[in-house]
This record gives sequence, C-alpha cells and structure tokens, in this order.
Amino acid sequence: MKGRRTWLISIAVITVLGIVLTGCAAVQKSDATDAPAAAAGDALPSWNDGPAKQAILNFVQTTTDPSSPNFVPAAERIATFDQDGTLWVEHPLYSFAMYALERVPDLVKAKPELAKVAPFSTVLEVLKGDHAALAKLTLPDLEKVLAATYTNRSVDAFTVQATQWIAHAKDQRWKRLYTELVYQPMQEVLTYLRANGYQTHIVTGGGQDFVRVYSERVYGIPPEQVVGTAGVLKYEYNKDGNPFLFKEPKLLLNNNDAGKAKGIHLMIGRRPYAAFGNSTGDQQMLEYTKAGDGARLSMILLHDDAEREYAYGPAQGLADTKVGAFTQALYDEAKKQGWVVISMKNDWARVFAFEK
Amino acid sequence: MKGRRTWLISIAVITVLGIVLTGCAAVQKSDATDAPAAAAGDALPSWNDGPAKQAILNFVQTTTDPSSPNFVPAAERIATFDQDGTLWVEHPLYSFAMYALERVPDLVKAKPELAKVAPFSTVLEVLKGDHAALAKLTLPDLEKVLAATYTNRSVDAFTVQATQWIAHAKDQRWKRLYTELVYQPMQEVLTYLRANGYQTHIVTGGGQDFVRVYSERVYGIPPEQVVGTAGVLKYEYNKDGNPFLFKEPKLLLNNNDAGKAKGIHLMIGRRPYAAFGNSTGDQQMLEYTKAGDGARLSMILLHDDAEREYAYGPAQGLADTKVGAFTQALYDEAKKQGWVVISMKNDWARVFAFEK
Repeated sequence: MKGRRTWLISIAVITVLGIVLTGCAAVQKSDATDAPAAAAGDALPSWNDGPAKQAILNFVQTTTDPSSPNFVPAAERIATFDQDGTLWVEHPLYSFAMYALERVPDLVKAKPELAKVAPFSTVLEVLKGDHAALAKLTLPDLEKVLAATYTNRSVDAFTVQATQWIAHAKDQRWKRLYTELVYQPMQEVLTYLRANGYQTHIVTGGGQDFVRVYSERVYGIPPEQVVGTAGVLKYEYNKDGNPFLFKEPKLLLNNNDAGKAKGIHLMIGRRPYAAFGNSTGDQQMLEYTKAGDGARLSMILLHDDAEREYAYGPAQGLADTKVGAFTQALYDEAKKQGWVVISMKNDWARVFAFEK
Repeated sequence: MKGRRTWLISIAVITVLGIVLTGCAAVQKSDATDAPAAAAGDALPSWNDGPAKQAILNFVQTTTDPSSPNFVPAAERIATFDQDGTLWVEHPLYSFAMYALERVPDLVKAKPELAKVAPFSTVLEVLKGDHAALAKLTLPDLEKVLAATYTNRSVDAFTVQATQWIAHAKDQRWKRLYTELVYQPMQEVLTYLRANGYQTHIVTGGGQDFVRVYSERVYGIPPEQVVGTAGVLKYEYNKDGNPFLFKEPKLLLNNNDAGKAKGIHLMIGRRPYAAFGNSTGDQQMLEYTKAGDGARLSMILLHDDAEREYAYGPAQGLADTKVGAFTQALYDEAKKQGWVVISMKNDWARVFAFEK
C-alpha cells in the first residue's frame, strides 16, 4: 500500500495532464533552420560558442589531461543524465506516461468490461481527442492506469509491449517517433564524453524497464547503465518449470529527487563527475555531483525556446508547468552552487537531428 | 522492522558460527604443491583438463565465434559470479561477517559502556579466543552486531572503515590477508571472459558497499559491476550544507536466492550468459541464467578439497555446513539442469596464487 502511494507521488506531476495536453507552453510547428555551428574537429557542432559549451570542453580537458591537478582516472569517469527534458522532449507529457495512456485500448481489448469502468473509460475518451476528459482523472485514477500497464505482468511481457509501442508511437506536434525527439546537442555530449573515457549513465524518474527498451539504440547507453524508477520483482516459474521475473505493483526505488542520488549509489556506486538535468527532480543529483572533490560539472537545461521546442520554467518568468518544472528557487540554487545553466535558445545551434 | 527481519534471515547462516569457528571441516595448513598445468597459450593454466575446463572453453568459443549459431553480440556478453565460496574462501565464516565481529572493539572504544552489554560483550570474548562464547549469540544478537557495524553511518564513513579493515585483516588458517585468498582458477576465468568481451559482474549475498571497497583491486571488477545486498539510504546534509548518503538499518535488497535474479535484473538488466556459484543461495541465479536461450553456462563449485582448502557439502557425503551449503538436492538439480559441477579437488591444478 505504501509502495503504491509512493509510486503515486512519483508521478504526481501527471495531475497536470489536463493543463499540459491542452497546451500551456507555446506550441508551434518547428520551422527552425539554424545551421549547426560546426567547425573542423568540433566535437559539439550543435552548440553555439558560449559559457555552456566552454564549460563542457574545459571539464573534459581538465579531467582527462594526466598533467592536470583535476585529472580523473579512466575507471572513475562517470557522467549521469536525466532523460525526460534533458535528453529528449518531455512536453506535453513524459513519454513513459503517454505509454501508460496509450496502452489502455489494449487493456480494454483483453477485458472489454473495462471500457465502462473509470478511469479506463476516461482515458479512452481522452485518446479519442476529448482532452477535457483528462481533468476528470484523479491521482488514484492515474495510479491505476500506471499499475495496470507497467505491473502485474512478467518483465518479458512488458518488454515486448513497450518495444512495440516505442517503435510506432508518435508525438502529436512533430508527427515523429518519440525516439526522434532526442536533442542533438546532448547526443553530441554523450558521444564526446564517451570518446574521452566517460561512462554515460541515464538516471531517470521514468520506469527503468521502459527506458531500457530503447536506450541502447537511441542513446548508445546499454541497459546496465540505465538507473530508473523500479518496482519490486517476484521470482516465479511457468508451467514448464522455467523461471521468470514478475513485476509487482509495488515501488522499490522512486528515482526522483533524493532518489536519484540513492539510485546512483545503489547501481553505480561512484559519485559522478558530471551530471545533466533540467528540473526540480534533478536537484539532488546535481548537488551530489557538484559536492564531490576536484572538478565536477553540474549542468541544467532551461527550456526557453518556444519556437524550436517549448518554453517553461517557471524560472526566469517562463510559463509555469508541473511537467519538468524548473523553479526560480532551483535557478537561484544553480547560480549559487556553480551549476551551469544551458539556455536552449542561446546555447543550442540546433535542437533536433532532423532539422536542416 | 520487516526490513531488519529480512536482513536477519539473510545472515541466518551465522548461527553456526560456534560450529564452524571451532572447525567442522578438515583444517590443515596448506602444503599443496600442485603445479599449474600451463600449456603455451592456455588461458586457464590453473585448471586441469576435464569437463569443467572444457565447458568454459567451449562456451567462450561458441558464443564469440561470429559463424556460430550461438554467437552472442559483444554488448550482451554478461557473466555473473557469486563471491563468497566462488571467488574466494568463505570458511570458517564469510569475510563480510568477520568484519562485523572485528569492528566491535572499535565500537566499544567509542562507547565503553558497550563492553558490558550483550551481544557486544560476547563478541569481545569470542575475539579474545573464547570460541565457546559464540554459542551464546542468538540471531537477534547477530543482527544487532551487523546493524551496529554496517549501518547508522554515512556511506563515506563506512567505506573508510571497511577499507582499513580489509587492508589488514587476516585469515587465521593461512595467516594471509583475506584478499589473498582468492581462487586463482577463477581469477583466470574472469580474465579469460573479459578478454573475450564479457562483462564480469559480482552478484553477492554480502554487503554491496563492503565488496565494492576492494572488488576493483582484487578482481578487476569496478563498483558499478557489483550487485550485492543493499540497505535503504537516506539523503542528508552535513552542517556545511554538503549532501551525503546515510546507511539506514533497513534492508532494500536481500541479494540471496531469488534476490540474486532480481538484483541482476535491477542492476544489470540483462540475463547473464554465464553464471558461477557454489551454494543454495546461488540456485536461482544459476537456473535463471540457464533458462535463457542459446548457449548458457551455469557452473557450481563443490568444495571437496580438505587438504588445499575445505571440504563441505553436504552433497556427495561431504561434511554438512551452514556457511555456503551445497546440498544433495542442489547437486541433483545441477545434474538435471545441465549445470557443470566444478570439483575443487579434481578440476583445479592450483587453488591460490601464492602456492608454489
């Protein structure tokens, strides 16, 4: 019961479904044509020159130069990345939550009586285009939808379902696969860090099993380097006597907020030298990273680009949101702690790979 | 409360302290002089020719040959190893539990009143040589000693303490550091697998934070590839405002039995292609591994060498034990499931690197 409640809290942001799906941030068809500022040998061609790009270059230089006082042995080079809103688009709603909603028709197909039972009936209305219906969904409703789509099945069955969905599911604004909505500048950072001996781990509030389905293909990050929200497992046997793992509707690790620092210790066991995030859920990961000795890099992405992507804070007078909020308090903390704020608008020459 | 109880169960084997410390297996000074059966280019020189060695060679050959139907892509090459009794000596008592007992004098130094309070007073008697005193220790007593030495401190403080201990603590039979009591044949397997693109992970019932202290130095296995029994963490701030992780006296993952399969999924996220164990606590890891498709290797070590190490089962008529028991039922299961049993006596030409 407590586990379910915690799970619930971890996705509390979804309460704002009604707001965000009807559009709180400027949502316009992208027509950006910024050319990447590529220079010969530039490892970060989609970044504009400026303090953010320079901070990354300086960090890699100082931690990989054996003559530097900040040199970090290869084995200790760990970098961690939030996913939603840091590596790919999180608006209007986290993809892991969209998955839960869009799985409901299949649930109803298997159990037709669900079509008349809330909250499944409500989700069906939403999926038919009635966004106002979303406002009817309460937190316990959403909890039920997540539990019904992520748990009470084997790990293998979940993997098959999520794999099918992610292969076809598209974002409504760009009409592209969610996996195409990864940020090109961050892909370059991943590649650049790995080329310099850094392990790149995802540390996400999203479901660990969900992200593992595509992380290797999309980011080059293998399952064993994905730390995410994870549920309790049960070890069972099928009728042929073969063992399998069953996903119970109970939370083991809520990988948000302080949970990110805990998840990093549990699954990686070393303090990162670099961490990248974009919202309040990343605060502890960023401060835990920065509190280490030597040169540590904590960077936080501000979505201030309504034209090419979205603009939300509420920091710096941007629109408020509950999906990936970057509060003014967090902004002030970033400045105080020496984290580097990335302005999507100013620091990124290109947002997506599919841009010309 | 439930967490503490589970922790307790996970170390229930320690009840037999009294028996094992007074010597249930033949304990004689090692005088083995078996020369390694090294051949030019032999990756496993400390293994005698036989079905066990051949199984390892065949497995690596068939899973790394691109023309083989059993070929495994490099990214999926995962091998998991139990530690106590599989990679190093576990008798008369697991080193992680010896650590708990031997930390008690320091606890008493900090709080002198503990010297007169059970179970700490009892442990002090034991450490002075009164092994009979061990029989007085109940399970709740032992639970208290483990909690008092592993938890209620920061991760950083624990790491410092465990690092100091492991640098100096010695086994009483060989008068050598515990870290010297690693099995040379298994070191060769680790090296051989890694040379063939396999990741080698430790999957131990011992404390994850404890094993991480020395795993890289001793086995070449970095902290992020150690899956172990782990407690709940708390994220706190010191008086300077710097964050740190605090180890609470509550269990998160009991990494024994079915917990090993769960831990593997949680922290690695792929089913291993090879797994190595030696006791009932490894059964689910071995069967979970073997149940995968393609060529999977599950191997289990039988300690049947009283002269060079220890002899215990109770499988095959060997002495009974509660520290790393290999039951006859497990032996029968191994034969039925096609796991390969390693006979320490017959399959290993050499047990320790320090042997001539």
